[in-house]
Amino acid sequence: MDSRLHDHLTFLIEVDQLKTVLRQSPLAAADRRENDAEHSWHLALMVMVLAEYADEPIDVGHTMKLVVVHDLVEIYAGDTPIYDTAMGESQQEREEAAADRLFGILPGDTGRQLRELWDEFEARATPEARFAKAMDRLQPLLLNWMAKGGTWRTPGVTADDVRGRKAVIGEGSTTLFEAAMHLIDEGERRGWARS
Amino acid sequence: MDSRLHDHLTFLIEVDQLKTVLRQSPLAAADRRENDAEHSWHLALMVMVLAEYADEPIDVGHTMKLVVVHDLVEIYAGDTPIYDTAMGESQQEREEAAADRLFGILPGDTGRQLRELWDEFEARATPEARFAKAMDRLQPLLLNWMAKGGTWRTPGVTADDVRGRKAVIGEGSTTLFEAAMHLIDEGERRGWARS
Repeated sequence: MDSRLHDHLTFLIEVDQLKTVLRQSPLAAADRRENDAEHSWHLALMVMVLAEYADEPIDVGHTMKLVVVHDLVEIYAGDTPIYDTAMGESQQEREEAAADRLFGILPGDTGRQLRELWDEFEARATPEARFAKAMDRLQPLLLNWMAKGGTWRTPGVTADDVRGRKAVIGEGSTTLFEAAMHLIDEGERRGWARS
Repeated sequence: MDSRLHDHLTFLIEVDQLKTVLRQSPLAAADRRENDAEHSWHLALMVMVLAEYADEPIDVGHTMKLVVVHDLVEIYAGDTPIYDTAMGESQQEREEAAADRLFGILPGDTGRQLRELWDEFEARATPEARFAKAMDRLQPLLLNWMAKGGTWRTPGVTADDVRGRKAVIGEGSTTLFEAAMHLIDEGERRGWARS
């Protein structure tokens, strides 16, 4: 086997670890937390199904690439819970180091290609990245809704904190942002999030 | 919320169940079996990283769509283990019924779009479908290799049975087919698959 293919396969085995990075969100279909690989697959399918609600035209295939790679750095940097301010402060530095290490396993050109996709997702400067990020914030909202609150019940978190974190959905889709706000309003009314 | 968006979101919550469909393959990164959602994410990333080995030019984004939807029918039809001949006989009928039911949750046009992708994957009549299927057969081979045999150790299965099941990789990529045969040869030599 030549060394280029060997490095590609080594990377593809290394990323199996994404299946062991647990998120805070509870599954709708089982009594356990979701992992990053499952989450990333769910986002890819959401891009396909919900693309028609994007405010700007998007390249669906490219947006899928963004969501498939967006959490890879968490293999080394771990998941940073969205309402954990202390972990949030060191997040960028930890994830940059993780990206250097993980994408460095790949042949140079392939590694650069994936790194650019991750950078694009983080920067939210393209319509595809804005829609990908909107999916990333909408998906756990759906799971929390099904769980009658889920991480909305994190101590110290209020319905307004949730609204603040979900504002970014509006950068990708006005329609989906309005649907998200509707679900949070209704969740607050039912006592699933603190007023 | 209008009824079209409601149906899209209902479908996206229903498919959370893919995370609970267990496959035979053991993870490389943890001591448990893989589920279909994790597997589908892994294939999407493999398409991105390994596309350069496709024998025919492929549209990477379209191939990713095929792998993201390819196992959805197993939500209702269950996973059919590759070496289980009895389950294999009823597989097509069970999966067609599951497709009708699952894609029927969606608005008509969206449901038809996803059904066509699943049909395309199954038919293997396009370069994208052949490459997607090659990924579907190569990925568990990598996991079995890391597990020093994994499902190759299924009672009654020989190294030649494994070779037979992996031949389809060669319809998408000669290079990856040769790599797969190399790993099986070496696995047989090490006693991880029966001669």
